[in-house]
Amino acid sequence: MLPIAVDAMGGDNAPGAIVDGARQAAAQLDVPVVLVGRPEDLEGRRGDLDVLPASEVIGMADPGSSVRTRKDSSLVRAAEAVRDGKASAMVSAGNTGATMASALLRMGRVKGVARPAIATPIPVPGSTPTVMLDAGANAECQPPWLVQFAQMGAVFARERYGIAEPRVGLLSIGEESSKGNPLVKDTYALLTGPGALARAGARFVGNVEGRDIMTDDVDVVVTDGFTGNVALKTLEGGMRTLIRSVLDALGATPVADEAVGALMPLYATFDPDQTGGAMLLGVDGVCIISHGSSSATAIVNAVRVAKEMVEAEVVDRLRSAVAPA
Amino acid sequence: MLPIAVDAMGGDNAPGAIVDGARQAAAQLDVPVVLVGRPEDLEGRRGDLDVLPASEVIGMADPGSSVRTRKDSSLVRAAEAVRDGKASAMVSAGNTGATMASALLRMGRVKGVARPAIATPIPVPGSTPTVMLDAGANAECQPPWLVQFAQMGAVFARERYGIAEPRVGLLSIGEESSKGNPLVKDTYALLTGPGALARAGARFVGNVEGRDIMTDDVDVVVTDGFTGNVALKTLEGGMRTLIRSVLDALGATPVADEAVGALMPLYATFDPDQTGGAMLLGVDGVCIISHGSSSATAIVNAVRVAKEMVEAEVVDRLRSAVAPA
Repeated sequence: MLPIAVDAMGGDNAPGAIVDGARQAAAQLDVPVVLVGRPEDLEGRRGDLDVLPASEVIGMADPGSSVRTRKDSSLVRAAEAVRDGKASAMVSAGNTGATMASALLRMGRVKGVARPAIATPIPVPGSTPTVMLDAGANAECQPPWLVQFAQMGAVFARERYGIAEPRVGLLSIGEESSKGNPLVKDTYALLTGPGALARAGARFVGNVEGRDIMTDDVDVVVTDGFTGNVALKTLEGGMRTLIRSVLDALGATPVADEAVGALMPLYATFDPDQTGGAMLLGVDGVCIISHGSSSATAIVNAVRVAKEMVEAEVVDRLRSAVAPA
Repeated sequence: MLPIAVDAMGGDNAPGAIVDGARQAAAQLDVPVVLVGRPEDLEGRRGDLDVLPASEVIGMADPGSSVRTRKDSSLVRAAEAVRDGKASAMVSAGNTGATMASALLRMGRVKGVARPAIATPIPVPGSTPTVMLDAGANAECQPPWLVQFAQMGAVFARERYGIAEPRVGLLSIGEESSKGNPLVKDTYALLTGPGALARAGARFVGNVEGRDIMTDDVDVVVTDGFTGNVALKTLEGGMRTLIRSVLDALGATPVADEAVGALMPLYATFDPDQTGGAMLLGVDGVCIISHGSSSATAIVNAVRVAKEMVEAEVVDRLRSAVAPA
C-alpha cells in the first residue's frame, strides 16, 4: 500500500500529538505513513517516518479559501500526494473548511458527484454508529445532492461497519412525508422513486427525527450540511455537559472510584478520539477528517480508518453506487 | 385571576394524569383551573374543578388542520375560552400542531407579529435554562420573522427567568458572520442593525453553535422551526440514550444505590416534567405547550408557568417589544 499522508501541522495539538499518533499508527497497524509539514518542525520528532515537505501552514481559524494562496501548505501538499499517486489517503485534524477545499481542488470529485459531503459516525451504545451526512460541507443543498449523500453514505456504512443493506433515513421534523421544509419534501419524493438507492444496495426507511440518530433504528441519516452540523454540535455539547455533570455528581460521593470506573466503557463509546474521524465522501481519494482536538490516539484511529477505506476501495465503490445528480 | 383552561383530553396520559395534575395545581398554586373536555370522561375524576364541555378530541397523530373541522374539540374550546375572556391562559399536552393552530385561529396574533414561535426552555446545569425558538412552529422562515423571534424570546427569558438583559444568539455553523445559510446571514445583518433588540431590552451576541445551547454563554437561541426542532429532538434523544446507558452501567455495580442516588438532582434538572413546558409566543393570549408524555407533575408545572406568564402580563410586554416585521 502507498503511504497514508498525515497532515502533521493540523489540529489544536499539532505537531506533537499528531506526529506521535502517526508513529504509533505506523508501528501498530502495519501501514506506511508519511508526515506532511515543515521539516524543521518535524525533525527530532519524526522517528523513522518520512517527511513530505510543505513550508506553509493553514491555521484553524483561517478561511477555507486559504488553500488557493497557500499552495505549499501541508493540507494542499497532502491532497496533491494522493492525486499524484504518492499517497493512498490523507488524514488531517486541521481546519475542516481548508481540508475540504484542498481535497476538492487537488483530488477533484468522483465523476457524477455534484457535491462532496462529510460523513460523521455518531456512536450508538450497543450497536454500530449511525452515519450522518452532510455534517457541514454544504450549508445549502439541493434535493438531488441529498439523494447522492444517501447513496454515498450507504456505501460508507457498508464498507466501514459491515452493514449489508444499510437503512437510510431522511432527517425531518416528523415521520410523515408531508412534514419538513421544501428541501426535505422534494428529497423524500426522490428517495421513494424507483431505484433511487438500488445501486447503493440500501433501503430508504423514510423520515427520521433527531431523537432517532442515536438509536439502532437507522444506519445512515441524510441531511443538508447546515442542519447536520447543528445537530452534530448540539449533540456534542449536550453530551459534554451531561457527562461532566454526571462525573461531578459521582465524584462527590464516597463511591466515586467504583462508580466512575463502571462508566469507563461508556466513556470510551462516546470518546471522539475513538471514532476514527469523519470521511469526506465524493472526492476522488480517501480523505479522513479527524476532530480539531485530536490526541495521538485519535490519529491512530483515523489512520486505521484511512487504511480500511483504501483496502475496501471505497472510492471505486462510490463511483459505481452514485447516480449522476 | 380568571381560571387557567387545561385541555383534559390532550396527551399520551389523558385524561387521568392531566386531570390529576390540574387538581394538584389548583390545590397547590392558589390558582383557579377549569378542565376542558368531554364531561362524561371527566365526571368522577374532576373533584372540585369546573368543566368547560367539549364533545370532540383531536388525537396526537391528527393533522393540525383538524381544528378547522372539530370546532367542539377541547383544544379549540380552550383557545376560545381565552379569546372570550373566560380563561386567562390555556395549557395542553396534546397535539402540538393542533394546539398552535387552535391558538392562532381563536386568539389571533399579537399585532405586528408575522408568525408565532414555540419557545422551549433547555436545561443548563447550574444556570437558568436557555430559551430556544422556534422549536417547530414554522418549518420555513424569513429573516424578519427571526428578528421577531429574538425580540419575543428576550421578553420571555426576562419574564420567566428574571434575566435583566438577555443575550440573544443566532444558531449557525460557525461564529463568523459569513458562516451559515442565506437565512442566517440575512438575519445576522438585521440583528446587528441599529435598535434591532432595543425595545426588547436584549443584546445580540452574534452567531452561536449547537454546542453553546446547553451552556450559560447565551440566554436565547434563535433559529427557524426546522433546525430548532431537529436540534431539540437530537438533544432529547442523545440525553435519553446517555442517561439510560449511565443508569444501566451503574445499576450493575455493588454501589448502585449510592451512585444512582447521587444523580437524582441531575435527573431532576433534565426531567422534561420539571421544565414547565414551552410557550407559543406571538398569539394574543398565554398558551403553554406541555410535552406529549406529560405526567401530573408536568401539568402542575405547566399551570405554574401559565400563571406566572399571566401575572407578568407577558403578552402585553411582547406587544411593546416586537417591531413590525
